[in-house]
Parts: sequence; structure tokens; C-alpha cells
Amino acid sequence: MRKGLLILISGPSGTGKGTVCDLLRKNHPEISYSISATTRQPRPGEQDGVNYYFYDKEKFRQMIDAGELLEWAEVYGNYYGTPKQKVLDRLNAGEDILLEIDTQGALNVMKAVPEGLFIFLLPPSLEELANRLKGRGTETEESLQRRLGAAVDEIKIAHNYRYVVVNDKVEAAEKAIAGIIEAEHHRTDLNEELLAGLQQWKENA
Amino acid sequence: MRKGLLILISGPSGTGKGTVCDLLRKNHPEISYSISATTRQPRPGEQDGVNYYFYDKEKFRQMIDAGELLEWAEVYGNYYGTPKQKVLDRLNAGEDILLEIDTQGALNVMKAVPEGLFIFLLPPSLEELANRLKGRGTETEESLQRRLGAAVDEIKIAHNYRYVVVNDKVEAAEKAIAGIIEAEHHRTDLNEELLAGLQQWKENA
Repeated sequence: MRKGLLILISGPSGTGKGTVCDLLRKNHPEISYSISATTRQPRPGEQDGVNYYFYDKEKFRQMIDAGELLEWAEVYGNYYGTPKQKVLDRLNAGEDILLEIDTQGALNVMKAVPEGLFIFLLPPSLEELANRLKGRGTETEESLQRRLGAAVDEIKIAHNYRYVVVNDKVEAAEKAIAGIIEAEHHRTDLNEELLAGLQQWKENA
Repeated sequence: MRKGLLILISGPSGTGKGTVCDLLRKNHPEISYSISATTRQPRPGEQDGVNYYFYDKEKFRQMIDAGELLEWAEVYGNYYGTPKQKVLDRLNAGEDILLEIDTQGALNVMKAVPEGLFIFLLPPSLEELANRLKGRGTETEESLQRRLGAAVDEIKIAHNYRYVVVNDKVEAAEKAIAGIIEAEHHRTDLNEELLAGLQQWKENA
């Protein structure tokens, strides 16, 4: 059996990670996604272990201290994170798992799972990124400038990722990422069982 | 401009490297192949710099000593090898270059060009490899056993390659390799110019 791939996709805010990852999930339902843990209250209809793992803050802090989270962040007073063991168990069972996270969390995941597949999504240009952020209609001139400055800093971080994909058209970017995943399935380190089997002569095969 | 990829394909004798690489060249004429140097005499119609670089033994030995060959071997008293600088120049010019070589030469290429794309072609099974070798009609039982033993040893070397591809059907193996090449074009280290350009705001873009 082939080992699963931890597929990590990051990119500056406004690059379109969410849209590209949604299309990837739609076209490739065989790719799982990790369920995050959070300390925020469940919203109506949200189920523990389905939408999120809901933990209280004490439990969450214990998990941080014990190194049981691949990455975590505090947002508006609530914790969000990715439980490590659940991800590792599913990778060992041969599942590919998609993580769509910001660049800061990504660096922690890279340390914990260096054999992961790290893809950085890029805007076609800073000008196009500015247009997209303006198009949201939620940015002030000040926040726009701040996000663009952050994007330039984040693009430098792309060197920590093995692959870069330009999100010019969503369909093309999704296809490129799906192709990278398919290629990485051929990685030698994920196919140890295949190699071991090939070194044995099967008289009755 | 993106940097070119040195695509190195190896595999045990009888795995079908030649057939798969021929199909890859046919379907992807944009992939160049390296021209080998040799000390053997040109055959009628063979041109220097087209089919081979023809060198005398003294010149060839000088190149070996000066580290100017990516890999080389002596076969029936003649030298064969891959001139390093010519390959590096074409990679820097953005050309992908295909090298189809044996596992021994491959290890030397890996040392010289660690950023290359290393693919190991595998037979579906040892039994199938035996059938293919028998099908050639040129193997004695002794040479067959020797080749199978060598294949088992070579499969262990697969761990030095980033990717493994099983050659069950030639078309499928070629498609898998073409997909890996396409994916590797997205490697961050080959796209430095793209990243540099993205960090500059172009007022008039």
C-alpha cells in the first residue's frame, strides 16, 4: 500500500486558495481534509468530529504544550489548530489529506511532516492581487496596502515550498495542483511496499 | 525564464527504458536529449556533434581527469560519456534534457546535478522481467539468471531516485513520466525569476 500525502497549500491573502482548494476537493473527492480543533462554541448544526473537534481552552493548551498540534493559532480569543496524531494515522492508512493554511502555520507543519507536499499559490502579479482584494469591497486603502506589503513578504517564504503554482485561472491552477499530487504519488519514499514486493520472486505468480 | 530540468531515467535491463523514452521523445519533442561523447569510430552517416561527439582516447581521458563528464563508462574497449558543460549550458538556457542511462552512471549524474529529476523505471514483477528477457531470445539461462540477480540489486538503488514508475504498459508509463516532468516544472527552485518578478510592483502593468 502506498502511504498518503499531506498536501499543504498556502499563499498570500487574496490569491484564491479557498476557491482553488474547493475545486480540488470537488474534482478529487478521494482527497480528505483535516478536521481542525477549536475552542470556539459550536454553531447550530455543527458536530464535534465532523465540522470541528470542539475542545475547551484548558484541553487545547495541554495539546499545545504536549506538541499534539501540527499547527495552531489564536484568532479573536479562540484557538484553532490541527490535531497531529489524527492526521498521521490517516496518512499511514494511505489517505491523502489536504491542509489549506496560512504561511505561518505552514512552517510548523513542514517541521512536523517534512515529507509533506508543500505548494505555494501565487497571484499572477501584485497588481492583479490588488484588483482582487479591491474586488472584495471590504478593504480600506490602508488595509489594502498592508495586505500587499504582507504578500510581498509572504512570497519570499515561497522558497520553503517545493512547488509554486500561479493562480491566473482557477481551473488551470487546480489542474496543475492535481497533476503535482498525481506525480508525487510516484515518490519512492511513498512506495516502499512496492519496492519490497519487487525484490521477491513469486514462484506461483 | 524557467530553468531546464535534467531528466534522468534508469532501470534494470529489460524494464523497457528505451521504448518508454522513445515514446516520451515522440510525444514531447520539446525535450532535448544529450549528445554523448565516444571514442569509437563513427559509423557511415554519423556526424560529429549530431549523433555523438567523437573524441580520441587521449582527449576523452583528459576530460575524465578534469571532471568534464557527467558520467562515463568503458564498453568493449571504447569510452562513452556525457559532456557536462554542454548539458549545464542547455539547462541554464531553459531546455529540458533527457538522459537514459544505467544505474551506475546515474549515481555520478546525481552527484554532479543534484537538482535533476531522477526517475527509476520498474518492471511490474521479477517474473514479468524474466518473461521479457526470455522474449528477446538472446539470453542463455545463465545470463538470464545473472540479469535477474542484477535487477534485484538495482531495485535497491531505486531509493536514490525521487520517483519510481512501473512499466506495465508503455503508454501508461510514458504518461506518468510526462506528468512528473510537468509537475516538476512548478518546482520553486526552477522559478526564481517568476518569484523575483512578483515582488516588484509594476506601475504601468
